[in-house]
Amino acid sequence: MIIVMKQDATEQQIQVVVNRLESIDCEAHISVGRFHTVIGAVGDRQQILQLPLEALAGVDRAVPVMLPFKLVSRDFQDENTVIEIRGVRIGDGSFTPVAGPCAVESRDILFQTAEAVKKAGATVLRGDAFKPRTSPFSFQGLKEKGLILLAEAREEFDMPFVAEVLDPRDVDLVASYADMLRIGTRNMSNFALLTEVGRSDTPVMLKRGFTATLEEWLNAAEYIYKEGNQDILMVERGIRTFETASRNTLDITAVPLLKELSHLPVLIDPSHSSGKRQLVAPLSRAAVAVGADGLMIDVHPTPETALVDGAQAILPEEFAAVMQSVRDIAKALRIPL
Amino acid sequence: MIIVMKQDATEQQIQVVVNRLESIDCEAHISVGRFHTVIGAVGDRQQILQLPLEALAGVDRAVPVMLPFKLVSRDFQDENTVIEIRGVRIGDGSFTPVAGPCAVESRDILFQTAEAVKKAGATVLRGDAFKPRTSPFSFQGLKEKGLILLAEAREEFDMPFVAEVLDPRDVDLVASYADMLRIGTRNMSNFALLTEVGRSDTPVMLKRGFTATLEEWLNAAEYIYKEGNQDILMVERGIRTFETASRNTLDITAVPLLKELSHLPVLIDPSHSSGKRQLVAPLSRAAVAVGADGLMIDVHPTPETALVDGAQAILPEEFAAVMQSVRDIAKALRIPL
Amino acid sequence: MIIVMKQDATEQQIQVVVNRLESIDCEAHISVGRFHTVIGAVGDRQQILQLPLEALAGVDRAVPVMLPFKLVSRDFQDENTVIEIRGVRIGDGSFTPVAGPCAVESRDILFQTAEAVKKAGATVLRGDAFKPRTSPFSFQGLKEKGLILLAEAREEFDMPFVAEVLDPRDVDLVASYADMLRIGTRNMSNFALLTEVGRSDTPVMLKRGFTATLEEWLNAAEYIYKEGNQDILMVERGIRTFETASRNTLDITAVPLLKELSHLPVLIDPSHSSGKRQLVAPLSRAAVAVGADGLMIDVHPTPETALVDGAQAILPEEFAAVMQSVRDIAKALRIPL
Amino acid sequence: MIIVMKQDATEQQIQVVVNRLESIDCEAHISVGRFHTVIGAVGDRQQILQLPLEALAGVDRAVPVMLPFKLVSRDFQDENTVIEIRGVRIGDGSFTPVAGPCAVESRDILFQTAEAVKKAGATVLRGDAFKPRTSPFSFQGLKEKGLILLAEAREEFDMPFVAEVLDPRDVDLVASYADMLRIGTRNMSNFALLTEVGRSDTPVMLKRGFTATLEEWLNAAEYIYKEGNQDILMVERGIRTFETASRNTLDITAVPLLKELSHLPVLIDPSHSSGKRQLVAPLSRAAVAVGADGLMIDVHPTPETALVDGAQAILPEEFAAVMQSVRDIAKALRIPL
Repeated sequence: MIIVMKQDATEQQIQVVVNRLESIDCEAHISVGRFHTVIGAVGDRQQILQLPLEALAGVDRAVPVMLPFKLVSRDFQDENTVIEIRGVRIGDGSFTPVAGPCAVESRDILFQTAEAVKKAGATVLRGDAFKPRTSPFSFQGLKEKGLILLAEAREEFDMPFVAEVLDPRDVDLVASYADMLRIGTRNMSNFALLTEVGRSDTPVMLKRGFTATLEEWLNAAEYIYKEGNQDILMVERGIRTFETASRNTLDITAVPLLKELSHLPVLIDPSHSSGKRQLVAPLSRAAVAVGADGLMIDVHPTPETALVDGAQAILPEEFAAVMQSVRDIAKALRIPL
Repeated sequence: MIIVMKQDATEQQIQVVVNRLESIDCEAHISVGRFHTVIGAVGDRQQILQLPLEALAGVDRAVPVMLPFKLVSRDFQDENTVIEIRGVRIGDGSFTPVAGPCAVESRDILFQTAEAVKKAGATVLRGDAFKPRTSPFSFQGLKEKGLILLAEAREEFDMPFVAEVLDPRDVDLVASYADMLRIGTRNMSNFALLTEVGRSDTPVMLKRGFTATLEEWLNAAEYIYKEGNQDILMVERGIRTFETASRNTLDITAVPLLKELSHLPVLIDPSHSSGKRQLVAPLSRAAVAVGADGLMIDVHPTPETALVDGAQAILPEEFAAVMQSVRDIAKALRIPL
Repeated sequence: MIIVMKQDATEQQIQVVVNRLESIDCEAHISVGRFHTVIGAVGDRQQILQLPLEALAGVDRAVPVMLPFKLVSRDFQDENTVIEIRGVRIGDGSFTPVAGPCAVESRDILFQTAEAVKKAGATVLRGDAFKPRTSPFSFQGLKEKGLILLAEAREEFDMPFVAEVLDPRDVDLVASYADMLRIGTRNMSNFALLTEVGRSDTPVMLKRGFTATLEEWLNAAEYIYKEGNQDILMVERGIRTFETASRNTLDITAVPLLKELSHLPVLIDPSHSSGKRQLVAPLSRAAVAVGADGLMIDVHPTPETALVDGAQAILPEEFAAVMQSVRDIAKALRIPL
Repeated sequence: MIIVMKQDATEQQIQVVVNRLESIDCEAHISVGRFHTVIGAVGDRQQILQLPLEALAGVDRAVPVMLPFKLVSRDFQDENTVIEIRGVRIGDGSFTPVAGPCAVESRDILFQTAEAVKKAGATVLRGDAFKPRTSPFSFQGLKEKGLILLAEAREEFDMPFVAEVLDPRDVDLVASYADMLRIGTRNMSNFALLTEVGRSDTPVMLKRGFTATLEEWLNAAEYIYKEGNQDILMVERGIRTFETASRNTLDITAVPLLKELSHLPVLIDPSHSSGKRQLVAPLSRAAVAVGADGLMIDVHPTPETALVDGAQAILPEEFAAVMQSVRDIAKALRIPL
């Protein structure tokens, strides 16, 4: 931590800062500039971060030198985390396509979709039984009945599945069916829920909050990791910006940045980020080219009757075409798929 | 709902949209422009909102005419909602100052602060026993012990208190002590938690998500209201923007907009929005002038030792000065305080 | 400037940074932490800012300690800048209401408005002869004919006026009529125009870019000041955020922040920031309460026929009511008006 | 245009709206809903957009059905615009790499860079003689001397070049040397400058304002096109968001959206969008995969001595590696390069 003192800070104010740092066994390096005195604090990161340094008289601001997360950082673990669910390995340098309907609506639609995406090359099935909805009057999911259907589809088509969990009280229930728990974008800072999935031994897919910085997203992963669950799959799904031509703005730059900062694997979700089906194909091609570990795509056989997010779902045949160009790029870049 | 068809939409595509609307007993009014056909859908709002109209072929976009929330809207209830906790009325045209430490740290600090803010004119005490923290390594609150201290301070100084709840499993516990439950900014879209506090009969303070639109904030209130709890107090606390000179950007415009759209009372929190103690006084003056129903301010006798957010807490004597100028403005505008 | 080295930076890389700093006569203070080495650079601010330090091998990031602007800063000049145009003093602790039509459309409307706002208490007239419009097909202003009308209104009602200038080639023309030149929000980073008005001896009103940080806004003022023109009046007019319920989000916090950082006076423009006439009154009350040096308000006798921004203009009688409550608050706070 | 009336709008207010529309020869289609009356206006787009409909009593809001720009829209011209400069064709389905130093600093550095990027496959040279700088104290470019050097490099390496123009008074000067004029991100809404380059017969590269919506960007292109200059090359270069891990957020989704809405070609600039050299390679791969017409990349032989933006410039050998993977992807997708 670097503490920049105000131009008119007194000797005594500087000394108070030094004393506070020394009281937690930090070294304080003082550097006197023409206008500002700057104090470098060397010591235990977590302890320094707890100090309310900006509340001390004479302090202009405190600038962190180190990142606030540790366990999920590349500095803590250099080699990539590889997650394995039912034989599918994610993060090992290969490319993982996850696909399926946004929500589980019926056995028929689920099975029809699962069969098609499997055939086109998807290796993990998505589908939700619990849906977070902005309006309390919208369809909220089939709940346990949906999980049962997903488990049946898994057996039928030999694909592990990922499903969202919304409530800390439902973690055990969802984990008893799903191969991977998903934390949705609106729950990325739901610390009670993060803590609970961190105690589970089922891998977790952590979607980026659509209003969260990369640092906050990694902090959320740290919550899970700290509780013991190290199998965390990050998903970039667009952020809220001033632009309204697409639902959100896919932050594709986050992929190489995350790989630099962390050892966790990262997918791109072009469906929820764009909200428009015609954008799924070009964004999927960009995803494999930029170096993501995979994709998650909404597929639905009849989007015009979908109960959730129909405007962004692509048809099974469109998914097959997306997979073809993704495969072409992967091959050109020597990425196993 | 207005459905704008694409320029090249066919007659048949238009007919499909009309049929879908009629299938849910909506009327469809067709208006043929020079380039676009536009369809006005008249019928049950909630049903229309469920239709995936943008997924239909030939549809360019669907533009909602009505707001998505209903129960919390001014159209549903014209007169202002007034909340009463232990004799303190909020939203009746008077101005309510809420103040106290950000977190409960010890009996001593809590009581010292409560005594001072009461004396300066605050009528409701704030103080948290459960703290949501970005980092899992930060101080997380005294939990039930903190609630007990708050209840003691309530008796001692005769002030009702508001305290945050983070987990749906803790709602009953917090409600058994507190006069008002608080949903924090990071939990505004935690639908499991909103539903749970909606089932409580303790009033709820709903802070705006710092990344939420006004419409999403009112939708969150709708979640609570729909479950039966109609005593909802909204708190504007700044939004995330590109500006980093203050922690967040206080959206003061939201106050008159909210009062136009909704019957719920609204406070301003200048402490969390700005993150800097020297900004609390001017923003508090603006809050009463703009027409808010009150203020919520962090006060701490020794901010430089605070465990949470010390940089934004003001001293008891600074709070007294803020109250003086707020009182002057209230008097000039004939607002009871 | 503080240079944070990467965790794996070598001794040689650190030495290269030190050498670069010493080559421009800077002192380099090295502080070795547990993980990172940090180098404090002490020397001439402008020279250090020119160094591409982040391009050097081993450098993680360079954190500026000092603000990038100097001449407009409070450190450079402690007392407030006071601007005087035709006897009206702005920034001397009094409150200055600026009002008038958004654009000059006709002699009749201009004079009718000027008379009304003068009577209600405005001391400076606004009205534009050159309008920047997003669409090239929109009304672009009456040009010199508009300036002539404004000059006539000035004589008739004894009020100085401010008018926008869009093109460096028009600065002399506008300055030959107007008492104050305005740089509009879309031109805040038009450095050719800033330089040109900086060479004029007519005072300049510098609106904040609706996408500019406070620091960028002050940098733009520095451009003008550096050329010799020290009479700069800043106007906060809302910033672009994700919220669409109002046209822009009034950043009211910018007012006390700007007064802390700079000696320049600052107004609030509630009309352009909100884009809605019913918001002008509450935001005007907030403006005087927060400590702004004045207000700038769009007034039009028949907004429904206005050629520009009719939805935000208030009627002359509404302006009189706004002035009444602004005056009440000013009186309560002992601000001359 | 669709006009949504307020719930309590009177018959008379509705009639006033209808009358206004009919006064400009528009048809008004009235649709009476359960709560709101909606009026569809059919007629000349530009005339309707000029009406201050939201200023009329009883109007809730006016929703445009059509896009505000016309000439640059896909509806106006279905086939892609192809720009040709000295035999290089941009927008014809091939991929165009533009590269060079950010600013022209010296003959030596410029020639060294030009030779290297040409050899690696770039077909257009970039390099600026006029630089817009946030601080008035930063290096502002070599001006005409820089243009002369660029013209010499063009002859030596047989590559057309693009250079920025900042001031309407310099358009003729820059156009007398350059093969393409560039409008920088801070000048995207400088309407005086747009108009001036629109009158030139030299093609224009229009960078997206880093705070501009797609619609505003296309409106800026419309300004140029309307004056007669139809050779406009759009460049996506990242937008300002709350994320600070990269300098800006590359809005890669804008590429397919722009191609849907407009016939103009579009490049991606990974250097200015990210501000970090290690991000240039992955973002360049994404650019070709997503369907951009080309790339613009900052290259510098010694970034650590660059006078402008050294942190984002890549070395000539790094550029050659980027080109190799871009070529691999282009080949896999059958894009000529």
